[in-house]
Amino acid sequence: MKYFEDTAIGDRLELGSHTFLADDIKAVARRFDPQRFHIDEAEAERSHFGRLCASGWHTGFAWMRLFVDYRNALIDKMRARGEPVAKLGPSPGYQNLKWPKPVYAGDTVTYVMEVVEKRESKSRPEWGIVQFQVTGTNQNGEPVFGFLSTGFIERRPDRPA
Amino acid sequence: MKYFEDTAIGDRLELGSHTFLADDIKAVARRFDPQRFHIDEAEAERSHFGRLCASGWHTGFAWMRLFVDYRNALIDKMRARGEPVAKLGPSPGYQNLKWPKPVYAGDTVTYVMEVVEKRESKSRPEWGIVQFQVTGTNQNGEPVFGFLSTGFIERRPDRPA
Repeated sequence: MKYFEDTAIGDRLELGSHTFLADDIKAVARRFDPQRFHIDEAEAERSHFGRLCASGWHTGFAWMRLFVDYRNALIDKMRARGEPVAKLGPSPGYQNLKWPKPVYAGDTVTYVMEVVEKRESKSRPEWGIVQFQVTGTNQNGEPVFGFLSTGFIERRPDRPA
Repeated sequence: MKYFEDTAIGDRLELGSHTFLADDIKAVARRFDPQRFHIDEAEAERSHFGRLCASGWHTGFAWMRLFVDYRNALIDKMRARGEPVAKLGPSPGYQNLKWPKPVYAGDTVTYVMEVVEKRESKSRPEWGIVQFQVTGTNQNGEPVFGFLSTGFIERRPDRPA
């Protein structure tokens, strides 16, 4: 990743898309979230969702996978160009995790992260704190997933003191 | 579940425990969160975590599974006693999702939900809004997971108008 100093409010990370296939929705939900509208089409039709849809945590895990892949590809590219790679620290947490609409079987969700805030860490001067708004949008342009992620990003070692 | 009117601030749901086995941590992470400290013991030892630990989303999914099982068992018991079962509506979202400490391979996390706030819905009079603080605590009594969950719970059909 880029250093804190090189990260600007408005920067967007386009992470790519994930298609939620019915078999995957059901396999993940049978193990982790066996509610009837996630594991059985007929039951889902009788539920308030109206159709088979993915567990909310599955929508989150799909973001995580795309973000890890995005970051690894970016790090490879930066190393290949001889650029230094900034470290990411552990996340202090997420705010405002939402699923404004269901993710139905067959839906393709496109995930984007946008830098919405940044500030220096007072207690840990080698780190900056960056907030990303994470958004997942379905093939009809409707937001289906979102949260505000706070993370630590390494500061430039060569920054003026 | 109990109706909104029968739900009190301070009510606790003891959901039970989940043990995070190394093989499960790695299998889930290989698919959804392939960061080195979730998929390889030797790499994890070289990371800032120091040991193999579970993906944060895995910790969340384990809560989801225990909650679904708890709720289903409760509904079965209430039906067997002839008690009416209140419906739960979709969740408007989560706040303050946190992982204050890593969940290491072999750790057992015990999940509890406590009612911390309740209010009537103004726009939907057949529903009440209840906030639960969800907490996951490891075998040493250390909090490792938490969030504030907001949910709709059905109001008593026989409540005074």
